[in-house]
Amino acid sequence: MFSIAFTPAPIVVPPPPDASGVGSWLEFRGLVRGTEAGAPIAGLRYEIYHAMAERVLRHIMNEIAADHPVEQVVFIHREGHVLVGEVPVYVGVASRHRAEGIRFLETLMNRLKQDVPIWKAEVLA
Amino acid sequence: MFSIAFTPAPIVVPPPPDASGVGSWLEFRGLVRGTEAGAPIAGLRYEIYHAMAERVLRHIMNEIAADHPVEQVVFIHREGHVLVGEVPVYVGVASRHRAEGIRFLETLMNRLKQDVPIWKAEVLA
Repeated sequence: MFSIAFTPAPIVVPPPPDASGVGSWLEFRGLVRGTEAGAPIAGLRYEIYHAMAERVLRHIMNEIAADHPVEQVVFIHREGHVLVGEVPVYVGVASRHRAEGIRFLETLMNRLKQDVPIWKAEVLA
Repeated sequence: MFSIAFTPAPIVVPPPPDASGVGSWLEFRGLVRGTEAGAPIAGLRYEIYHAMAERVLRHIMNEIAADHPVEQVVFIHREGHVLVGEVPVYVGVASRHRAEGIRFLETLMNRLKQDVPIWKAEVLA
């Protein structure tokens, strides 16, 4: 139900789910913006502590799904250099109803920043 | 900034935006589920009052964007028969920050059901 992947290569997005109970397929892509705190950057560099990041993410997803049930989640995060305009993080959420998917996605992204050992640094232009 | 389209053919999804100020690209697909109120269905049939639906949608989007600013919105709705598992509605929202995009999408979908002249009927299995 929860698929988690880390990759140094550009993110390849999965096809929509085909389960007949799914009424909502929500996808989020973060994109690297051209400035960070007002200064131009070339990109961002991510470091991920794989085993712990995956463990924490599964724990968080299970917690959120208890409140906001979902059918399927695909989480993909890049590591290493990610250029301006590229996608460092992709999340796909399939759910019966739209509202649950939106709540799940929003809560997951907020907790990702707080609790998951993924670090980013700016790469100067 | 707001693109609105109605189509009898399967929805073709646009590529992500490439503006360097966009930090979030959120996409929602509704999917037709196999049952409606517990009974199996073959699909849904949509009728759209084009001119008014587009006018109301633009009005709603402008209102929502005043509270939750976004960079670009792509709204595509199918009309006619849509089979189980197919996508009757697609919405893409590009914004600087994730939170604005999520709020915009959520509010738009809630108001779509209430205020826009798009009617649906079940097609029995």
